[in-house]
Amino acid sequence: MKQFLSLRDLSSAEIDSLLANAKGLETNADRSRLEGKVLGLLFMNPSVRTLASFQSAMARLGGSSFVIAPGQNSWDMEWRRDCTMDGDAAEHFKEAIPVLEEYCDALALRCFAAGDHLDEDLCDPIINTVASLSKKPLINLESAMDHPCQALADWKTMDDLGIGRGKTKFVLSWADHPKALPLAVPVATLDMALRRGMDVTILTPRGFELPQSVMASAAVLAAGTGSVLHETNDQSEAMDGAQILYAKSWQSTVAYGDPEYEAELRACARQEDWQVRESWFDVALSDARLMHCLPVRRNVVVADEVLDGRRSVVTLQARNRLYTQMSVLCHLFPENQE
Amino acid sequence: MKQFLSLRDLSSAEIDSLLANAKGLETNADRSRLEGKVLGLLFMNPSVRTLASFQSAMARLGGSSFVIAPGQNSWDMEWRRDCTMDGDAAEHFKEAIPVLEEYCDALALRCFAAGDHLDEDLCDPIINTVASLSKKPLINLESAMDHPCQALADWKTMDDLGIGRGKTKFVLSWADHPKALPLAVPVATLDMALRRGMDVTILTPRGFELPQSVMASAAVLAAGTGSVLHETNDQSEAMDGAQILYAKSWQSTVAYGDPEYEAELRACARQEDWQVRESWFDVALSDARLMHCLPVRRNVVVADEVLDGRRSVVTLQARNRLYTQMSVLCHLFPENQE
Amino acid sequence: MKQFLSLRDLSSAEIDSLLANAKGLETNADRSRLEGKVLGLLFMNPSVRTLASFQSAMARLGGSSFVIAPGQNSWDMEWRRDCTMDGDAAEHFKEAIPVLEEYCDALALRCFAAGDHLDEDLCDPIINTVASLSKKPLINLESAMDHPCQALADWKTMDDLGIGRGKTKFVLSWADHPKALPLAVPVATLDMALRRGMDVTILTPRGFELPQSVMASAAVLAAGTGSVLHETNDQSEAMDGAQILYAKSWQSTVAYGDPEYEAELRACARQEDWQVRESWFDVALSDARLMHCLPVRRNVVVADEVLDGRRSVVTLQARNRLYTQMSVLCHLFPENQE
Repeated sequence: MKQFLSLRDLSSAEIDSLLANAKGLETNADRSRLEGKVLGLLFMNPSVRTLASFQSAMARLGGSSFVIAPGQNSWDMEWRRDCTMDGDAAEHFKEAIPVLEEYCDALALRCFAAGDHLDEDLCDPIINTVASLSKKPLINLESAMDHPCQALADWKTMDDLGIGRGKTKFVLSWADHPKALPLAVPVATLDMALRRGMDVTILTPRGFELPQSVMASAAVLAAGTGSVLHETNDQSEAMDGAQILYAKSWQSTVAYGDPEYEAELRACARQEDWQVRESWFDVALSDARLMHCLPVRRNVVVADEVLDGRRSVVTLQARNRLYTQMSVLCHLFPENQE
Repeated sequence: MKQFLSLRDLSSAEIDSLLANAKGLETNADRSRLEGKVLGLLFMNPSVRTLASFQSAMARLGGSSFVIAPGQNSWDMEWRRDCTMDGDAAEHFKEAIPVLEEYCDALALRCFAAGDHLDEDLCDPIINTVASLSKKPLINLESAMDHPCQALADWKTMDDLGIGRGKTKFVLSWADHPKALPLAVPVATLDMALRRGMDVTILTPRGFELPQSVMASAAVLAAGTGSVLHETNDQSEAMDGAQILYAKSWQSTVAYGDPEYEAELRACARQEDWQVRESWFDVALSDARLMHCLPVRRNVVVADEVLDGRRSVVTLQARNRLYTQMSVLCHLFPENQE
Repeated sequence: MKQFLSLRDLSSAEIDSLLANAKGLETNADRSRLEGKVLGLLFMNPSVRTLASFQSAMARLGGSSFVIAPGQNSWDMEWRRDCTMDGDAAEHFKEAIPVLEEYCDALALRCFAAGDHLDEDLCDPIINTVASLSKKPLINLESAMDHPCQALADWKTMDDLGIGRGKTKFVLSWADHPKALPLAVPVATLDMALRRGMDVTILTPRGFELPQSVMASAAVLAAGTGSVLHETNDQSEAMDGAQILYAKSWQSTVAYGDPEYEAELRACARQEDWQVRESWFDVALSDARLMHCLPVRRNVVVADEVLDGRRSVVTLQARNRLYTQMSVLCHLFPENQE
């Protein structure tokens, strides 16, 4: 494994190996495993879990890390080809990526979607540009359309809870939020649940369905594993018999890059109730769980009664970020390499 | 010792032990004492000494640390219960604290007073909320009404200088400043000096007296140690026979949360001279010292002539932050624990 | 070597020793060489290469580092003497420098020119103030008029490329840029090339010539090494027979601190073409190289065709920052010191 950009790039055997090693790292991490290794963390967007868990992961394995955050401790950076850089950006990735790689043994990048043009964001242009410039192990810390660190941690979370990989109903639900958020988590979550062999229902208000190209890829995945893939706007239908409710807000794909129309659709959705409440679980399995990638706005996205109740496993999901990422780092630096 | 939130929580024996170990750490620190340990630093407010000294302390003991700073490298965070999070804050402490604790072995928090409602700030609500959510060692890096890291360093500073613990006059004085500052340092300093058995005089302009509840607690402390506790608005009376002048600006407690009235009282105080000058020491002991927690605005809070003169021990106070905090960290992680 | 503030402070033997050790560190760095050592990094200005390479350098040698960035993770700081601090700055270097030095084994400072008064900036007042307050090893991470870390890396880069130290034509050229930038890099580069014994031509549009005092010092250096030192406004004349083109933008010295006049001169220069293009090299040596300290604005300062072509060595320059700085750190902490 040379890069960790998407679960799509990994075979099932590779995912199983990453998960098995993550389990072992929970109880026993070799404090000199990454001795002398340096991880470069390049954050184009803010972070809590990703920053803290990667810095901790490197430290616990005997390595270290540095953080570059354009627009915060450094100037803005440009990634587009052939541009005349007379605007805000003072540095181009064509220089920044090779240079930062000279200072570290692996590079990790967070680069959210611009949110202006769906077709462009669907190509995940920034992470792909960086991948083309990169010669060292590269980690995706959330890009326009993927979040493999979160997806792997979520997979492990369900394993930890003894939730079956096949024939188990996984509901990915849109939820309310004051802002139009990127699609990276829902897209990565959908893929992860299907790769895991689960039956997936996507629950959204009208106008917030996932993009057609995403659904087409998902249908191929589902066909391969024999999973059921279903979309609905009906909360009861979706929640009926659900084992997992994965809640997340994202921006409308029909109003993508059109803030006024987006706000209108969001206001429409708000007339129904898209805040996850305990009553949503009335028709679910009795031991159904709530998952969310965090951060979560309480009493907007999910009600206190659910987050503070027995169903919520959001802290376990976040905890698993640490161990799955330690596993990824160990895979990127095989032992006896030198 | 499981938490370091206030000197009030510690017995005299515990304080003596922390100070004795701090003394030892000045000359001899075991570079593998905290090997593999990670400290999570959560800064809701800016910092120089606290950030640098804790990162250095962990490094010198073989551990490491990470920094999360809401509003800087991450989004704003909410700590209030039962709120609908449709404003600036994207994450609640109910998630952030348990999650960050999964990534570290001890957590440390800086959370200044809001400055709006004195009664609320006197309850020190943020640090107490975090303490209730926290399951790992927790360190107070300055909260609304306490700053135990500063207080312990100041205690050691006086020990280093051979200043007696009992029957020595300690003057805590208000000083001028362009801004209305929190009460954490004066409140923690008052408690520390009384715990140390010193006679304490609090010197302020009218309207800047410390809150009644703070003075009531202080009176109980003073009664316990047999210390004299005195308040005055008269600089000469306060400084007469003083061994220590601890200068600090803080906001008016009678105009708390009322910026216009506060500014008026501050302008009134400015008609007298509340910048500490060498002449203040005319009636003090000849070897009287100036203490200040830093940062200090030169020629506003304290005149150059005092800060650059023989009385100032402000650098020694800051230096002692490192060694007392290393001692706190060692106490929070007893040896042979594993 | 107790400080690394300017190549001017170093003998030729010291520079040779730093370069020889840097070469060795490329292939073999002792991972415990700086065990337990802490570097304090004080950034008054943003950074990519300097921050990442110093944090990596310390980590690779077994030490660690912390970052204080006034105006970012801390308040503004004042360095001027005798001022009444009632403005933005909350802390004076007179306190901050000795205090930060208590928390680290060496201090490093980045402090750009204010850009208001040329005479003041030519005195490099901030780094010199800090040097006067500092008692520990101090490193200049770019000051008003110097950038020794860049200069040493550039020297090594030319050594790596087999470019002769004497009788080789080195062109330091102004280039276009939307902003008025500091003079630190051109001044340090000029000195470095002359110290290296190269023939130096400075190429600028009218109004962007380097300051007289800088040129006077350079003439003394050139006389000492027998180098030719030449200034011109003519691109062809400058590039004729050039081995190195070192491109960099800087502010007009005749319009220093006068933004309107500066913009006027810059607009004038823009009527000629001051973006470095491949055609500039038509009269240069066939293996002529492009150097730039980065960040570089593509298609403004230098055209893509040059940066992406065979002449560009900008990544190698940046790479050498790491190894020359590791060498500087090792020199500041001699072995067997304890």
